[in-house]
Amino acid sequence: MLAVHLESGRIEVRRQPLPRVPPGFARIRLIAAGICSTDLELQRGYYGFHGTPGHEFAGEVVAADDPGWIGKRVAGEINLACGKCDWCARDLGRHCSHRTVLGIVKHPGAFREFLTLPVRNLHVVPGSISDEQAVFIEPVAAACEILDQVRVLAGSPVAVLGDGKLGLLVAQVLRSRGARVHVYGRHREKLRLVENDGITSERIGNTIPERFWPMVVDATGSSEGLRTAIALCQPRGTVVMKSTVHGLVKIDTAPAIVNEITLVGSRCGRFEPAIRLLASGRVKVERLISERFPLSRAPEAFRAAAKKGVLKMMFH
Amino acid sequence: MLAVHLESGRIEVRRQPLPRVPPGFARIRLIAAGICSTDLELQRGYYGFHGTPGHEFAGEVVAADDPGWIGKRVAGEINLACGKCDWCARDLGRHCSHRTVLGIVKHPGAFREFLTLPVRNLHVVPGSISDEQAVFIEPVAAACEILDQVRVLAGSPVAVLGDGKLGLLVAQVLRSRGARVHVYGRHREKLRLVENDGITSERIGNTIPERFWPMVVDATGSSEGLRTAIALCQPRGTVVMKSTVHGLVKIDTAPAIVNEITLVGSRCGRFEPAIRLLASGRVKVERLISERFPLSRAPEAFRAAAKKGVLKMMFH
Repeated sequence: MLAVHLESGRIEVRRQPLPRVPPGFARIRLIAAGICSTDLELQRGYYGFHGTPGHEFAGEVVAADDPGWIGKRVAGEINLACGKCDWCARDLGRHCSHRTVLGIVKHPGAFREFLTLPVRNLHVVPGSISDEQAVFIEPVAAACEILDQVRVLAGSPVAVLGDGKLGLLVAQVLRSRGARVHVYGRHREKLRLVENDGITSERIGNTIPERFWPMVVDATGSSEGLRTAIALCQPRGTVVMKSTVHGLVKIDTAPAIVNEITLVGSRCGRFEPAIRLLASGRVKVERLISERFPLSRAPEAFRAAAKKGVLKMMFH
Repeated sequence: MLAVHLESGRIEVRRQPLPRVPPGFARIRLIAAGICSTDLELQRGYYGFHGTPGHEFAGEVVAADDPGWIGKRVAGEINLACGKCDWCARDLGRHCSHRTVLGIVKHPGAFREFLTLPVRNLHVVPGSISDEQAVFIEPVAAACEILDQVRVLAGSPVAVLGDGKLGLLVAQVLRSRGARVHVYGRHREKLRLVENDGITSERIGNTIPERFWPMVVDATGSSEGLRTAIALCQPRGTVVMKSTVHGLVKIDTAPAIVNEITLVGSRCGRFEPAIRLLASGRVKVERLISERFPLSRAPEAFRAAAKKGVLKMMFH
């Protein structure tokens, strides 16, 4: 089978044998997958990763202990938890300290013709969600995680910083809860994508309204994002940190302390609310797809994903 | 009258005329005052401060519009708010954007024989609190602020990082709420000061228990403190940022995001709970006093306060 291989920043396509299926696991034929900013960070050296990246996918189960799974169209949670520790007992396997992570930490990822995951990580994709929409279940779940962490009330004003893939998903997810969402971004054409959803937006300029927003989500993916988010945020407000940036970030902690801002680290989320939002059409993702590639053209797809201003690159 | 003057890092004692008393203000004769780590940060250039520092004090009202105040022994809230903005309307004048701050931002501080503050900032000190204890009302209020921001349940484990003045106050305040408090510090003799209060402690070594504490308070006053606090903290846990450090702090935001840690900036607090805790004897402060100086020996007092391992320096 074909598999994308990342090593020392280089993307190659290799031929590999089919992956083994350990007990409790399923083998999944890839239908579609998306390149995430985290994949680009891995390419830059984040986690010292080498191997097959990829963690946003839709696939079809082709092998599993329980034959009931065969032929099911699935998306998969990316954290492979031990199932035995305190975190797993609290249904927070996403924080299991023994976990591996699909395409990120010690488990080969989804950019290959066949991948494996524990059956307990799988979610059947309902018929109302297309293959390409299903690829977005994982990033929409990451956006939904904010709702599990922070109280977002209907009508409450929220600023989203960043008009990339994650920013535009976060904006839609918060809007689905009735928040008054305003997106700050650099690209007029991307900001336009969410305009008809009752979301306001503006291009970020040299002056920003300091101490203005009670809640700010940093989805810039840049190291300056956090500083700007803190500056935009009201005293006693909340900044959600959604950007994992590789390396040290210099921040002046004084404004966060003097203004008593709460910074909330936010990562992966539960798949269930994401599946509901995509099935209901309240979060729209097709417009976030920039280009489609076969796996065999992975180097080109990664180069395209790294260009400024693009959105989601898809493998088929 | 005598007044301490700080300019370009130099501490001097000057003779000045008595301060004017604007309407709504009181003139207060200084009884005692304490040097805070923030005063040492001001000396290092924080806020570009020059003038009279000092914001922890006890004094006696000698002039005010309302003669009922004359002769009262008082402590004073340090934020001079406008009284008209939205923040003031929400009883959060501590975040008023038009505020000045006693001895920190555009209002001369307490290290002088007579100071001024708005009458609405004053709290009468009950007879059960001594003059020296009263100086600690302001820093104990800052420690109590944590209780207004974060839910601290009886029996819940909390780590306090730092065995300086603020760390030892925070430990006692959290303990007064029934938390199981553990202090990490560098000085065996300081850690011993809180040992009989049901607080455990240890000298911090090269290895720390990572991902261990559900709540960590960084009261180190150092730029490495925040990094260590994030490492000590459990996934989904809370780190309270109590250290205002001058300048940029380099942090790796990835562990905070991956472990979904909440960082809470925390500054000044309400005086009422602090006065109650000091009056009841549940927070003990006399043992935190290292040395006593007259105002005339301010340069010496500041030098003594800057030495490693010392606690509170008092002016009388």
